[in-house]
Amino acid sequence: MRALVVGGAGFIGSHLCRALLQSGHTVTCMDNFSLGTERNISDLTERAGFLLCRGDASEEAALRSVFVEAKPDYVFHLAANSDIRASAQNPEVEYQNTYSTTFQILNCMRRYGVKRMFFASTSAVYGDKRDILLDEHTPDLAPVSYYGAAKLGAEALIHAFSYMNDIRALVFRFPNVIGPGLTHGVIYDFIRKLEKDPKRLEILGDGRQTKPYIYIRDLIDAICQFMDGEEDGVTLYNVGVSGETSVTGIADVICREKGLFGVTYCYTGGEGGWKGDVPRFRYGLDNIHKAGWQARYTSDEAVEMTVRAALAERDA
Amino acid sequence: MRALVVGGAGFIGSHLCRALLQSGHTVTCMDNFSLGTERNISDLTERAGFLLCRGDASEEAALRSVFVEAKPDYVFHLAANSDIRASAQNPEVEYQNTYSTTFQILNCMRRYGVKRMFFASTSAVYGDKRDILLDEHTPDLAPVSYYGAAKLGAEALIHAFSYMNDIRALVFRFPNVIGPGLTHGVIYDFIRKLEKDPKRLEILGDGRQTKPYIYIRDLIDAICQFMDGEEDGVTLYNVGVSGETSVTGIADVICREKGLFGVTYCYTGGEGGWKGDVPRFRYGLDNIHKAGWQARYTSDEAVEMTVRAALAERDA
Repeated sequence: MRALVVGGAGFIGSHLCRALLQSGHTVTCMDNFSLGTERNISDLTERAGFLLCRGDASEEAALRSVFVEAKPDYVFHLAANSDIRASAQNPEVEYQNTYSTTFQILNCMRRYGVKRMFFASTSAVYGDKRDILLDEHTPDLAPVSYYGAAKLGAEALIHAFSYMNDIRALVFRFPNVIGPGLTHGVIYDFIRKLEKDPKRLEILGDGRQTKPYIYIRDLIDAICQFMDGEEDGVTLYNVGVSGETSVTGIADVICREKGLFGVTYCYTGGEGGWKGDVPRFRYGLDNIHKAGWQARYTSDEAVEMTVRAALAERDA
Repeated sequence: MRALVVGGAGFIGSHLCRALLQSGHTVTCMDNFSLGTERNISDLTERAGFLLCRGDASEEAALRSVFVEAKPDYVFHLAANSDIRASAQNPEVEYQNTYSTTFQILNCMRRYGVKRMFFASTSAVYGDKRDILLDEHTPDLAPVSYYGAAKLGAEALIHAFSYMNDIRALVFRFPNVIGPGLTHGVIYDFIRKLEKDPKRLEILGDGRQTKPYIYIRDLIDAICQFMDGEEDGVTLYNVGVSGETSVTGIADVICREKGLFGVTYCYTGGEGGWKGDVPRFRYGLDNIHKAGWQARYTSDEAVEMTVRAALAERDA
């Protein structure tokens, strides 16, 4: 198969490129390197069957030339602004990097007759519904972040393009994904802060924000398991893990793994880390479990493995 | 109040401008005249308190200068591609005219601190769910048209911008709106076709597509009744009428009103008029009825009144 991975130099995208290559597929990786890095794909650039195209998928001309060159059978769309906290100050980033990329990709698929796609959606499409078990049929989706809004709009586009052009789309809504190669987020932030000041750690919110963290390998396995599904139209799953980890819990793991004791935690206060943050949610996973997939690692295990990997990377 | 009506020279927008002026508000009308017309607002241009700004709301600079000049307290966002059949061939139109206008308007409201808006959404956000009574809490929204997808994406943006910036938004999801000044759609098409050939009428689909048609005055009354609501966040209503009218029924009314007998109806066949058309749906109106609004005219009455007005306009 000829795969096009848009956002392929990003955290999730680079792991996916690697998995697709290992399964014998040809992989074209397109990335604008806004969040993606050379380092993420440094082991891939010389591999046979791997092609890197620098370019911004929100720009029609750039994207069309990649479609013409790569002739993909399958598009994996992971291009987005994944730094939700950053876009809270600048919604334009979500319009450009999350929504417009999706529109242009779908419009290219329509033009060039590409019939399969994977889309990385998010638990943020639900909004702040902390008292409800969120499953794929939860009504009244009301995103509270520009990121969640752009992703929900992207899902809507996928429905219409799928219907109009007989495209099979696999959509995963997942919460925070962590693992080796992470470039932002709470684990990354805490490690940097503790390097600057190993005695005091500023924690956004009250530290009780509690979320499920899925390990990158689990997510990649799920994509590979479901990507060849035979259902027409849009197949949508919540993808996640058992358990969840509090922000203070993450700080504890990092301090322990770094061998720091007696660090003072200074909380900025308030329920969420920032406006648009959803501090807690209950994530229903029955559908994907019934379909035969289950995460190997719990949220706490994912956090521990990620912290260890991140510290090892920084020591290297 | 200083109202900004974006899409104010369009079919619905121009009726709304008129109603707002009559209630004593100052009205700035912005339109790119892609579907809006000079004629729609010809009686308004000389009125005190009315300002016309030509420009495209999807262009940030143009929109910002309108916000600076108009200093609106309230934005009524009716700018969209309302010709769904046309955009089926060219989804770019929906990206530009329906979604991007919404993003730019919300981003200007954020910048200039405007705290109230009305948004014209659509029954097309639900997709093709003909066996379900569609109410505001129906889950699994899956638009089948690019139009419906762009509107659902726009709603998602409204949720996030409302939450992040304390904007009160009134969102109406309504089906086909008809009345004097209509510039496209089935009634308009049939009248033109019968002018060319009064013996034979081509009807898209099998003619049994059956939809509720709401009369423009009813919709405007609903906007005026709910626009000053005191609820925070997003207030969402399905807005519609009792009854529905089939496409063949519309043809019958037009032939009767035109005094044509024995016209041969030639059906192109198939359930929908075009791909992305939703041929039938059941529209739940309990919430807006409970809130104290009800349409005065049934769907059949709306069709008759509109046909008479359209024929009178063409005779004039």
